[in-house]
Amino acid sequence: MSQDKAVFYHAGCPVCVAAEQQVAQSLDPTRFEVEIVHLGNARQRISEAEAAGVKSVPALVLAGQTFHINFGASLADLKG
Amino acid sequence: MSQDKAVFYHAGCPVCVAAEQQVAQSLDPTRFEVEIVHLGNARQRISEAEAAGVKSVPALVLAGQTFHINFGASLADLKG
Repeated sequence: MSQDKAVFYHAGCPVCVAAEQQVAQSLDPTRFEVEIVHLGNARQRISEAEAAGVKSVPALVLAGQTFHINFGASLADLKG
Repeated sequence: MSQDKAVFYHAGCPVCVAAEQQVAQSLDPTRFEVEIVHLGNARQRISEAEAAGVKSVPALVLAGQTFHINFGASLADLKG
C-alpha cells in the first residue's frame, strides 16, 4: 500500500510542540509519511501552507485535508 | 507494549465526521485503542468530556491530553 502524505506545520510554540509530540507522532506509520515543517525556520513554505488552507498553527494536512489542532499562532502573525 | 487510550468526541456534524474519518482513523492502531463517542447520542458522557478539558467538538483526547480539531460545535451548545 502506498503511503499518504501528512504534513504537520508548526512554529515552535508550546501548543505546537505538544500537538506535534502527541498527534503527529501518533499517526499510523504504515499509512502516512509524516513531514514536520517549522514555519518559523522554513519561511519559504508559508505560502505552501496557506495554499493548503492552513490559517493557524499547529495544523495537520492529512492526505490533502487540513485540520487545525488547538491554536498556537495565526499564519498572518508568522508572516508579519 | 500496552496501548494508550484515545477518545474522539464528536456530535455528528460534517466537520466532526471529516475529522473522525481522517484523524481518528489515522492513529497508529498498535499504539492506541481508539474509542469514538457521539455526544449527541451519548449525552451522559458530556460531563466526562468536560472533565477532560473538551470545550468543543470534534476533539481528541490522546493519552490524557486534549486536542481540539477544527471547530464543529461547542460543548455548551450540546448541553443546551
